[in-house]
Amino acid sequence: MNTSTHTATAAIIGGGVIGAGWAARFLLNGWNVVLFDPDPETPRKLDAVLANARRSLPALSEVVLPAEGTLHYAETLAAAVAGADWIQESAPERLDVKHRLYGDIQTHCRRDAIIASSTSGFKPSQLGEGTARPEQIIVAHPFNPVYLLPLVELVGQADSLARASEIITALGMHPLLLRQEIDAHLADRFLEAVWREALWLVKDGIATTAEIDDAIRYGFGLRWAQMGLFETYRIAGGEAGMEHFLAQFGPALAWPWTRLTDVPELDETLIATIASQSDAQSGHLSIGELERLRDDNLVALLRALKGRDQAAGALLNRHDRRLSAARKASVESASAPPEAVEPESNTPALIETVARVVPIDWTDYNGHMNESRYGQVFSDAADAVLALIGVDDDYLARGFSWFTVDIHIRYLMETHAGDDIVTTSRVLEGGGKKLRLFHTMKCKDGTELATGEQLLLHVSLDTRRSCPPESPVDGLLEKLVQEHAESGASL
Amino acid sequence: MNTSTHTATAAIIGGGVIGAGWAARFLLNGWNVVLFDPDPETPRKLDAVLANARRSLPALSEVVLPAEGTLHYAETLAAAVAGADWIQESAPERLDVKHRLYGDIQTHCRRDAIIASSTSGFKPSQLGEGTARPEQIIVAHPFNPVYLLPLVELVGQADSLARASEIITALGMHPLLLRQEIDAHLADRFLEAVWREALWLVKDGIATTAEIDDAIRYGFGLRWAQMGLFETYRIAGGEAGMEHFLAQFGPALAWPWTRLTDVPELDETLIATIASQSDAQSGHLSIGELERLRDDNLVALLRALKGRDQAAGALLNRHDRRLSAARKASVESASAPPEAVEPESNTPALIETVARVVPIDWTDYNGHMNESRYGQVFSDAADAVLALIGVDDDYLARGFSWFTVDIHIRYLMETHAGDDIVTTSRVLEGGGKKLRLFHTMKCKDGTELATGEQLLLHVSLDTRRSCPPESPVDGLLEKLVQEHAESGASL
Repeated sequence: MNTSTHTATAAIIGGGVIGAGWAARFLLNGWNVVLFDPDPETPRKLDAVLANARRSLPALSEVVLPAEGTLHYAETLAAAVAGADWIQESAPERLDVKHRLYGDIQTHCRRDAIIASSTSGFKPSQLGEGTARPEQIIVAHPFNPVYLLPLVELVGQADSLARASEIITALGMHPLLLRQEIDAHLADRFLEAVWREALWLVKDGIATTAEIDDAIRYGFGLRWAQMGLFETYRIAGGEAGMEHFLAQFGPALAWPWTRLTDVPELDETLIATIASQSDAQSGHLSIGELERLRDDNLVALLRALKGRDQAAGALLNRHDRRLSAARKASVESASAPPEAVEPESNTPALIETVARVVPIDWTDYNGHMNESRYGQVFSDAADAVLALIGVDDDYLARGFSWFTVDIHIRYLMETHAGDDIVTTSRVLEGGGKKLRLFHTMKCKDGTELATGEQLLLHVSLDTRRSCPPESPVDGLLEKLVQEHAESGASL
Repeated sequence: MNTSTHTATAAIIGGGVIGAGWAARFLLNGWNVVLFDPDPETPRKLDAVLANARRSLPALSEVVLPAEGTLHYAETLAAAVAGADWIQESAPERLDVKHRLYGDIQTHCRRDAIIASSTSGFKPSQLGEGTARPEQIIVAHPFNPVYLLPLVELVGQADSLARASEIITALGMHPLLLRQEIDAHLADRFLEAVWREALWLVKDGIATTAEIDDAIRYGFGLRWAQMGLFETYRIAGGEAGMEHFLAQFGPALAWPWTRLTDVPELDETLIATIASQSDAQSGHLSIGELERLRDDNLVALLRALKGRDQAAGALLNRHDRRLSAARKASVESASAPPEAVEPESNTPALIETVARVVPIDWTDYNGHMNESRYGQVFSDAADAVLALIGVDDDYLARGFSWFTVDIHIRYLMETHAGDDIVTTSRVLEGGGKKLRLFHTMKCKDGTELATGEQLLLHVSLDTRRSCPPESPVDGLLEKLVQEHAESGASL
């Protein structure tokens, strides 16, 4: 299966929060999705999740996502899985239910299809028990919201995992391959440990749900969004490092700090306590509002890490590069002329320099894209022009770059979060140290949103002063200027 | 003690990672600090932490922090605590050591001083045992890096906590008051639970330190940076809410997923395994480099949340408003004329509209502030002018605002992360729907960095079309235009 050349199909079995999240993740990455869930409410629930995903996932990317795949609802499990490359089971956490499903799935699915379970607790060996082809069934455990969080724990047979790993990566996610199967995989063991302790704290009246949430999100939650447990503690050890930290922290483990040795009984009283504290904390917002808050926060956090090329942000940048390469390849293959044509007619007078969605963190109190972000789009557009004339990491490493010395931006229309925008650029003047660009930013429907006229100077990064560009930039720039002059398109 | 009118003094007892972090937090918030630690290496270590704090904490703020306090090293504990308003003890986690210190401290400190311990494990009742005034000793447990993370767990006697809470808030941090004392307070109980489980996973060869870190930072770590455990699970319950979630998750607690009931022995083999895996994961970077990576990531994450006014970002925005009010009050009291002067001579021809530090997330691959951020500074400068002419939340709520329609930016000098920048603005033209501003951005030393000429139109937020401003904006704008015309300062 080659995900880059044909439209692959995912069968989503179970359309709850997790199943719907998978459906959104696949669809927005260009896969076709067939969903099976006997619950008549499924389409309504899926629409809500899809709406959330459409307003957040594309904003994670600085490039355009592939065209959305098609969504079908299957009447039967057999119809859902028949043509699928990937079958994702997100049924309730009951082994008997899952075994019955796998029996049906394996009767009707392709032998080379991957059957992946979203289970948070069961091991592949348990899932495969009594099935026709146990090796076909793996665990692919995602985290809610599936369309935004990158982690997927993969557990199972090595061959299947290698293929699964490629697909999970192509979906912009991070495959974490477990070295051996254990109950609850990795992350949920931590979550369960924290959850047990939290239940005790609420039960014993030590803290409310809101106080516990504050203890997490104002402290170690922030640390863990970027480094995990061990890297954080390595730093905490200071110059003496990890061994020092272990020596210092170690003895505390013998102390009876936590009540983790017992499981609190989740009786009616405790459930009522938690539910009422949770209402007091978050009840002023509907679940839908909380979801959008969470998603917007996650987009902002992930974009912050992206700007730093760190942690999950580094994953996203790698994914952008893959998307960008795929887009370029598909544009090139689509526009490849069947026979030779006059080179001039192929010359782009206007270069498409930016194509993206406006992310939520670019908006301001007026409800629209902040004026400074137009400047960011034009800065990115200039970078795209520079990439065309050979300004790459190597050229920067040689100690050269282009700095903007002047820009004039005209704001023509408001732009909002979620808008698809496209910027085209042309070279007005280029020669010696100078490069003058004209950018036009438009909405997908062709409406002009803004223009920017920008003057850049070629500089030496050593002296921080202007100097003439060197090869290959000088030659490529000259060629581009000539092409734009020949194209003769007026502004 | 009134922290807003006199310079308060903090005595920092113990200059390790945590003590030095406290010293930085106090100093950068305008407190004087006296540090006592017999270790001759202390000044060198503190300098390193202070350098980290100075490059990161000011960047969290959109306004200027108070002038840094003075730092003294005390020869004796007695000299350190004698004049202190707040005494922060960050000695090793040994009760006998702490008791000896409290004896000395209480002999020499003021009776109204707060004595706070950074202990992660001990309860105030244990700390106070056998001391002269046990009620004076509280727990103020911070999180590393103390100069960036807002959480402080406060435990102790109610009167002391009320005062402590005010001071912690004034330091830009979040006081989490515990309802009753327990071992390890709140957050560390969770950390210990996770740590124990992580040790087992490494010991059993299930996962490496790097894999465990990925399991955290690509999944729940991101969730916990913005919402905690309960709010996250409330959402996971979907429309059915918290009770549904509890009913679903509850039964899993009885399963034997985790090995939390045992404490793994932290023997030489396990220590060596962790240390070598940690080296493989992070050993290519020094602790100093890791610290700066972590701090830059935290600044970017916190600023992302700030942009959304959510979670820790909402705390920071509140702190900015406090700093801004304090700055305004101090400017006004400093410039209050002892007797009446000609009003004209008091008229500011140039309004200081932005005074801030350039944060790390504003820089780009050229190593300097990205061109679009100049636009952001000028956008903020325009907001400051608008605030002067009565454009506040009320005015926005009435359905009016000003939109930028044109800006011309000249880039004169490079600007870098950590630079102190000041922008002055003047009104070139104001009348009817039009407002034309000229901004000059300078470095602290007076070097001009950039200028921006900006045209704004007054709009109705209902029709999104231009319309004349209403009272009080029309009148205040007219007054400002006249003042700027009379001042006659040339550009």
